Amino acid sequence: MDLNLLGQRAKEASYAMGRLGVSDKNRGLKACADALVANADSILKANALDVEKGIANGMHQGLVDRLKLTTQRIEAMAEGIYQVISLDDPVGEVISMKQRPNGLMIGQKRVPLGVVGIIYEARPNVTADAFALCFKTGNAVILKGGSDAIESNIAITECIRAALAKEGLPEDAIQLVTDTSRETTVELMKLSKYIDVLIPRGGAGLIRAVVNNSTIPVIETGTGNCHIFVDKSADLDMAISIIFNAKTQRIGVCNACESLVLHKDIVDELMPRLVEKLGEKDVEIRGDEAVQSIAPSVVAATEDDWGREYLDYIISAKTVNNIDEAIAHINKYNTGHSEAIITNDYNNAQKFLNEIDAAAVYVNASTRFTDGFEFGFGAEIGISTQKLHARGPMGLLALTTTKFIIYGNGQVRK
Amino acid sequence: MDLNLLGQRAKEASYAMGRLGVSDKNRGLKACADALVANADSILKANALDVEKGIANGMHQGLVDRLKLTTQRIEAMAEGIYQVISLDDPVGEVISMKQRPNGLMIGQKRVPLGVVGIIYEARPNVTADAFALCFKTGNAVILKGGSDAIESNIAITECIRAALAKEGLPEDAIQLVTDTSRETTVELMKLSKYIDVLIPRGGAGLIRAVVNNSTIPVIETGTGNCHIFVDKSADLDMAISIIFNAKTQRIGVCNACESLVLHKDIVDELMPRLVEKLGEKDVEIRGDEAVQSIAPSVVAATEDDWGREYLDYIISAKTVNNIDEAIAHINKYNTGHSEAIITNDYNNAQKFLNEIDAAAVYVNASTRFTDGFEFGFGAEIGISTQKLHARGPMGLLALTTTKFIIYGNGQVRK
Repeated sequence: MDLNLLGQRAKEASYAMGRLGVSDKNRGLKACADALVANADSILKANALDVEKGIANGMHQGLVDRLKLTTQRIEAMAEGIYQVISLDDPVGEVISMKQRPNGLMIGQKRVPLGVVGIIYEARPNVTADAFALCFKTGNAVILKGGSDAIESNIAITECIRAALAKEGLPEDAIQLVTDTSRETTVELMKLSKYIDVLIPRGGAGLIRAVVNNSTIPVIETGTGNCHIFVDKSADLDMAISIIFNAKTQRIGVCNACESLVLHKDIVDELMPRLVEKLGEKDVEIRGDEAVQSIAPSVVAATEDDWGREYLDYIISAKTVNNIDEAIAHINKYNTGHSEAIITNDYNNAQKFLNEIDAAAVYVNASTRFTDGFEFGFGAEIGISTQKLHARGPMGLLALTTTKFIIYGNGQVRK
Repeated sequence: MDLNLLGQRAKEASYAMGRLGVSDKNRGLKACADALVANADSILKANALDVEKGIANGMHQGLVDRLKLTTQRIEAMAEGIYQVISLDDPVGEVISMKQRPNGLMIGQKRVPLGVVGIIYEARPNVTADAFALCFKTGNAVILKGGSDAIESNIAITECIRAALAKEGLPEDAIQLVTDTSRETTVELMKLSKYIDVLIPRGGAGLIRAVVNNSTIPVIETGTGNCHIFVDKSADLDMAISIIFNAKTQRIGVCNACESLVLHKDIVDELMPRLVEKLGEKDVEIRGDEAVQSIAPSVVAATEDDWGREYLDYIISAKTVNNIDEAIAHINKYNTGHSEAIITNDYNNAQKFLNEIDAAAVYVNASTRFTDGFEFGFGAEIGISTQKLHARGPMGLLALTTTKFIIYGNGQVRK
């Protein structure tokens, strides 16, 4: 597979995309959504091959479920594209145009990133989803999905490309890397000549591999060891409700709570009630000695537990003497994702918001809200846990950059 | 040298820095500026060792000049810090706080990046300069200068650390990597556990090495193959004035013009006058056949010339048939820095601004204005030629990130 050729085509398409207005982009998206539904049969046929191969290879049932498409799931993909159509296009806005003393007018215009690379794992719906967000913001996208979903991804990509071509729009706005070998993936990560930004979507191993190998700027979407600190003054009913929600509402997600930090003065009263509530979902609690001494069902936590993202019905619990210890513990072990304090103390709420180093910091709410839809962006390309460019849930804006535009009338530098 | 220890100290200092208000930060900066002047003798003594070693090793005279400090240069460093004191602190602003339908209040607060790593080359004034910008924005900085300036950098850093300690401020807000070996430098580039952002400042080789080796997010400050396109409708007097300025006002800088693109209809009239004007500074012109046929003194350009950043009294010149060819040529060979069009045609001006892919795009002005001071930021940590986070000249804002802060009253996710 000639990645250079792929890159060149993407770059060409990105220039064509940059010249499109939002009406043309929405027209293209509508054609793609409709084409997915119209071609559901051939997509399902391709998907059946992936599923068959997965089962033959002993794929875990949960993964087979994520891989498997149905007519309803294809309709949901199309529906997702319709939602992207309804969002405002951030491209083209000039953010702050000001006149300099020498008469130069200098402003910052919001523009597409150019070519976006996305490396992701099994779920084939990411293919349509990532394309729609990139297309809406005028970017060309190069997709590299997992080998498990290769037939499905090819079918979805071909369907979208055909729809774009039929509309007279650049079909190279979406290209799929069909060679899923490790060598090709690593080569893709070094295609900085053509790809402007690389976004990995998947587990910790995938993200680490991309960060370690890429010479393209990466937006790290991350794992979440999210903490909830229950302060001395907390409303314990609220604390239990929020912890139960953040731990058990959906366990396999990055904004689920994995670690509790408990003020020593409330452990006696909170723990028995918490053990009971979390027991409804058979959540295993791994605690320090203070927690264990109150709740005998609690397993002893090891140092390793403080840094774990379980993605399971397990939670760690650590007691602290004061909010400063809580903040130090969280800043030491967190992954920069989402952290919450439950408190009725004004100063501690402010202190926690100010001093916790994470993408999203909550007072008296569940960490599960860290999400592009819940934050009101209407879409999400991922949740950034790094500090450059975008931090936290990323909507359409994160798929754009700016350029300075300067109007002069002959100015030269003195 | 234990880089992990360095990283831990920097992280600790960054938390302390994050708690400081702007009055404390300005007090610290003032103490540092005054200390540099007060300790000029010892800094000059250390610098003399570097200069002596440089000369003994046959260092180029130009580099010796850049390395050498004088009382005046130390005063200029202090003056630079005073200028940073006078700038507004961007940290702490909450950018957009909105209420969601469920009552959650969600806003984005501007915060320091945390720990900034800066890898740079010979000039010791970068040490004080980079520190001041990082300190003002509440960041701890780990500096890695070149071995040529090691004694000077140690003296400057020690002077600043002592001044901070005396003020009761975190001295680990500035740390210097004193082991300048390649192995340690590469190890530093992988210290992602402690360093949030890495900024290389120097030549193309240094920047490439950082991009290729770093696992820390990098802000690429870049080389500039800056173009000026002289359109058919250009005011030729203006074109010559701008080209002369952009090429010769200062040759060794990234925003100097390296490449001309000329509309075929103006080549006949422009070239003889341009040859004469650029001749004042003995600028060598390397052109295509059309350019050569008009101006016999023009050297034949090779394919290699279109992509060169000469940083010298040399410029390439290419003719095109129309603005589309000009844009395609520039987008193919530029480095994403600064590009200008000289035109009186409204539509072509807009087209150029829209379609050129670069950090700064000019109409009728010299590319030399791409600079944090000229853009009105009051300071500059570098000029970004990548698209993530910051693009173009970077002032204090580029040394900050945001975090979402969320005020709730018990919300859980449905």
